Amino acid sequence: MTKTKVLTGITTTGTPHLGNYLGAIKPAIEESWRDDIQSYYFLADYHSLIKGRDPKRIHQSSLEIAATWLALGLDTDRVTFYRQSDVPEIMELNWIIGCMTAKGLMNRAHAYKAAVQDNVENEQNDPDFGITMGLFSYPVLMAADILMFGAKKVPVGQDQVQHLEMARDIAKRMNHHYKTKFVLPEAIVDENTSVLNGLDGRKMSKSYDNTIPMFVPEKKLLKLIRKIKTNSLEPGEPKDPSTCTLFQIFSAFATEEEALAKKAQYEAGAGWGDLKNELFEYLNEKLKEPRERYNELLQDPAFIEAELRKGAEKARAEAAPFLRHIRQAVGIKGFV
Amino acid sequence: MTKTKVLTGITTTGTPHLGNYLGAIKPAIEESWRDDIQSYYFLADYHSLIKGRDPKRIHQSSLEIAATWLALGLDTDRVTFYRQSDVPEIMELNWIIGCMTAKGLMNRAHAYKAAVQDNVENEQNDPDFGITMGLFSYPVLMAADILMFGAKKVPVGQDQVQHLEMARDIAKRMNHHYKTKFVLPEAIVDENTSVLNGLDGRKMSKSYDNTIPMFVPEKKLLKLIRKIKTNSLEPGEPKDPSTCTLFQIFSAFATEEEALAKKAQYEAGAGWGDLKNELFEYLNEKLKEPRERYNELLQDPAFIEAELRKGAEKARAEAAPFLRHIRQAVGIKGFV
Repeated sequence: MTKTKVLTGITTTGTPHLGNYLGAIKPAIEESWRDDIQSYYFLADYHSLIKGRDPKRIHQSSLEIAATWLALGLDTDRVTFYRQSDVPEIMELNWIIGCMTAKGLMNRAHAYKAAVQDNVENEQNDPDFGITMGLFSYPVLMAADILMFGAKKVPVGQDQVQHLEMARDIAKRMNHHYKTKFVLPEAIVDENTSVLNGLDGRKMSKSYDNTIPMFVPEKKLLKLIRKIKTNSLEPGEPKDPSTCTLFQIFSAFATEEEALAKKAQYEAGAGWGDLKNELFEYLNEKLKEPRERYNELLQDPAFIEAELRKGAEKARAEAAPFLRHIRQAVGIKGFV
Repeated sequence: MTKTKVLTGITTTGTPHLGNYLGAIKPAIEESWRDDIQSYYFLADYHSLIKGRDPKRIHQSSLEIAATWLALGLDTDRVTFYRQSDVPEIMELNWIIGCMTAKGLMNRAHAYKAAVQDNVENEQNDPDFGITMGLFSYPVLMAADILMFGAKKVPVGQDQVQHLEMARDIAKRMNHHYKTKFVLPEAIVDENTSVLNGLDGRKMSKSYDNTIPMFVPEKKLLKLIRKIKTNSLEPGEPKDPSTCTLFQIFSAFATEEEALAKKAQYEAGAGWGDLKNELFEYLNEKLKEPRERYNELLQDPAFIEAELRKGAEKARAEAAPFLRHIRQAVGIKGFV
């Protein structure tokens, strides 16, 4: 059976929270158990330099993300789990394909255009104010990440679909001119992906500072859940679960039956205090075991390092011969 | 004694000609014998992908350039002579500093602006028509080439001075934000560098198709010299050496005394045929020995390869620890 290669990059700028877990980590780990899929997961630490200027934060984030994925049961023997920066071949490919990438393509990238728009709205004289070459050429590196491993499918958010089209475009140009055989990747946008709300009811996101980190200590978890915004309905008054963040978080983790039972509680007028305590109990039970593993892992960075090196070895065993082939195609090779 | 590091890149898109020799190769090789200078020469093969889309040509050009420099006496034990593509650390540094390089800096690069100007003049709808990300981000890679080895001086033509300013600018930003210690490089523009004329009297350049390649066979050399454009003055009529390409080439290779004697011949009315034959004899005598070595070297690509690998090893022995240091500074490092 031919396995479909699926590749997922994780930017190393934050601490994983429940929103990341439901939207990306959980589906990815589940996918890694499937026999028809060959999965690649990488810590996109070189990408994170685009926005992350705090070295300690980038390093700590890489560690926390790796520990999170491992604690949640990622089987590193089944998948290739590596740090982008451990595969220097990617940076060579990045340059090679950049020489075949029209600058005009990057001019049209949404993220770049949004940054320019911000400058215009803020009446900056220079529309490129504060924009680095890293930000501008980000889609080329993303294409290199993907094309290096011949990934066929790349699960992304709607905002990344354009980058996948760019990767296809670059692959086609290379194949056309150099007769290379880059695989044309496809975006997978899961419309059903749960978007979790945060403490204030908006989408849970680091940029809103409204997250519940995956593995905070019990007491902190309770405290955060108690901060979740609810309305002023008293105990005894029926409540609408469909507009309630507490219920949304609960049902994202619960079975259908559990969710139905919870819904009934809302309609019967359960009080917010009780609902919050119950959500805490429920979540805490689910997170307890992986949280313990996570904390153990953080105490053992050598183990995490070894796992990532193992992944890098596997990744480079594919990347090195592939790059050699591409280098030859463009005329970069030894004389013997 | 502290040696000054001097770095020279050679783009691998053509076959070395007499103009390259006098303008770049000869001064560089002479410099390499000085005890107060530590020289780095590299075949800029990754740069050459920007314009070179013919893999065979890029490969052949690399071979010819390496053979030329070696045939002319480059002492690879005294200098570091390497292929850019053999030092992958440069590509990592390229990305890292790109994340600290303002896009606006690249917008102002002369080469990019000239390409845009061409498009505007040709009434292209897209001012970026035909411009690749390679061309646009070229100054960043050039900065990485230079900053990687802490080169203090970089001999360049007037058109490259701006790129050196950009490299300084990037180095300063890195040093300011990350407390790194990048050396700030300086351009050396030698005003006295001989610009040699080509067959048609314009500057000798591949783009004018008017060159005399360094090591063409004797017969071909004679044929090319006979094609050099002169005026219609007859034998016996006095001639002006100062406007004569034959004389310009002769004196570029000759001692002052030899040039004076030749000048006298012109004034005494020597014929163009004789002057051409004499230039051939003179040049041929100078080029005979290195030409023989060059041809031997081309027959022994394994030797050239070994020389470049030796250079790459020396280069990487510096580049690897330096990159490690820079990676640490930006937060890219292992967990143990």
